[in-house]
Amino acid sequence: MELQAIGVQHPAVRQVQHIQNNTAPNRYKLFVAEGLWAHNMLLEAGAPIDTFFWCPEAIYADEAHRRAEEIAARADRSFRISLRTLEKISERDKPDGLLSLAALPRWDAGDLRFGKTSLVLVADGLEIPGNLGTLIRSLDACGADCLVLTNRKTRLTHPKVIRASQGTILTVPTIEFEQTADAVAWLQRHRFTVLLADTDEAVNYRQANYSGRTALVVGSERYGIGKEWYGHGYQRVAVPMLGSGDSLNVSVSASVLLYEARARKSSW
Amino acid sequence: MELQAIGVQHPAVRQVQHIQNNTAPNRYKLFVAEGLWAHNMLLEAGAPIDTFFWCPEAIYADEAHRRAEEIAARADRSFRISLRTLEKISERDKPDGLLSLAALPRWDAGDLRFGKTSLVLVADGLEIPGNLGTLIRSLDACGADCLVLTNRKTRLTHPKVIRASQGTILTVPTIEFEQTADAVAWLQRHRFTVLLADTDEAVNYRQANYSGRTALVVGSERYGIGKEWYGHGYQRVAVPMLGSGDSLNVSVSASVLLYEARARKSSW
Repeated sequence: MELQAIGVQHPAVRQVQHIQNNTAPNRYKLFVAEGLWAHNMLLEAGAPIDTFFWCPEAIYADEAHRRAEEIAARADRSFRISLRTLEKISERDKPDGLLSLAALPRWDAGDLRFGKTSLVLVADGLEIPGNLGTLIRSLDACGADCLVLTNRKTRLTHPKVIRASQGTILTVPTIEFEQTADAVAWLQRHRFTVLLADTDEAVNYRQANYSGRTALVVGSERYGIGKEWYGHGYQRVAVPMLGSGDSLNVSVSASVLLYEARARKSSW
Repeated sequence: MELQAIGVQHPAVRQVQHIQNNTAPNRYKLFVAEGLWAHNMLLEAGAPIDTFFWCPEAIYADEAHRRAEEIAARADRSFRISLRTLEKISERDKPDGLLSLAALPRWDAGDLRFGKTSLVLVADGLEIPGNLGTLIRSLDACGADCLVLTNRKTRLTHPKVIRASQGTILTVPTIEFEQTADAVAWLQRHRFTVLLADTDEAVNYRQANYSGRTALVVGSERYGIGKEWYGHGYQRVAVPMLGSGDSLNVSVSASVLLYEARARKSSW
């Protein structure tokens, strides 16, 4: 395969660094995909590939050699880079010669359609990228309709979000509201019953009612759910804490709640 | 408070670096505790403090100043260090002047006593420290009796295990078997019903039987449960996967199973 060779000074290489370090605007929600596994995921999901960087010297799997041509055919532009350049932009110990800038899908709140027993999760103010990615992986697993972000503190294009989501970020619809009030209104318009994950004045999550459409709200690792979510008469549900700690990891508690809701909706 | 001042060349400082980087034997299961929160946790749990390093110049909370004397009184030995030395051994962006080498409690399989409906988790071959710590936090939360480690790949003293456990590693009993066969025999001796978290030939986890004593087994992030756990007639239980991904994060799936077992045992 013949591709234009570029070096570390090329604007495309700099762009990768900007995306990784979040040092430039990223209006097309580009993220960095590295390695065979991530590229198989891009191809399978049909994700738009903006730029493909190919370093044949670093490829160690036969499948990666074959895949390189497919990726180049799909990418808007493709370049060949040296091992030295690859090492500059890779975040892996052993980069495998395939690296792309790809775009996250964009979802619009107005385009989503819900069924009678839809299930959505609202993540309010989540701070740790790994938690957000793990949460998206759980949303995919339990067949939730979408993730709603309010008071967003971490970007979806963060490498740790992508990695922890195990690629499910390409398929789970994610929508964001800049104002919590707009999320509240949107959920009401779609007739969701909103449940706040909160230990104060809460009912045991096994006793909650998950009929109809359910929106579960979880809050930030440090501060919990923002105050804009209170005062609407929403029920609070708690996963009982029986030990010395006072909380669960947020992606764990969200997943326990999500699966409880899914099981009850499905009568498992 | 008057404490002996030491510099970066002092053996105690080197020991901290060895513990952090796992570059020396660690038979007393020492780990590094940093900051006010971690020290409050040590004091509350009554954990043995081997060495306390105090850097008053770096302390910014009044409570930390007060706590320093308590910690020095409890520690086997205490030193004063400079900001420069603190920066050499701290893994934080903004270290707060309290750093200790403390010891994890040691639990012996022979000392544990179980009730009629005890619940334990076996983690077989887990590789990612953050997952192990998060798992321990969930074990604490759901009131499980202990964590059993087989085919151990990550050390309990890893800073990320400590951090993700949020201190519950000091209270949740953890025992390790070098041979899986010994764990199998031990669980049998204690009349545990063993359930393997596995998607193949599995029953839906909501339909499993959690009466009596229950041991849930989860496997490594990449390879699942080791083959030594099969062939004993253990039932397999699965959390249904309804999306595009083929698995959940292991600390998430373990927590969903643990809380299901706890809820059923408690008739929530």
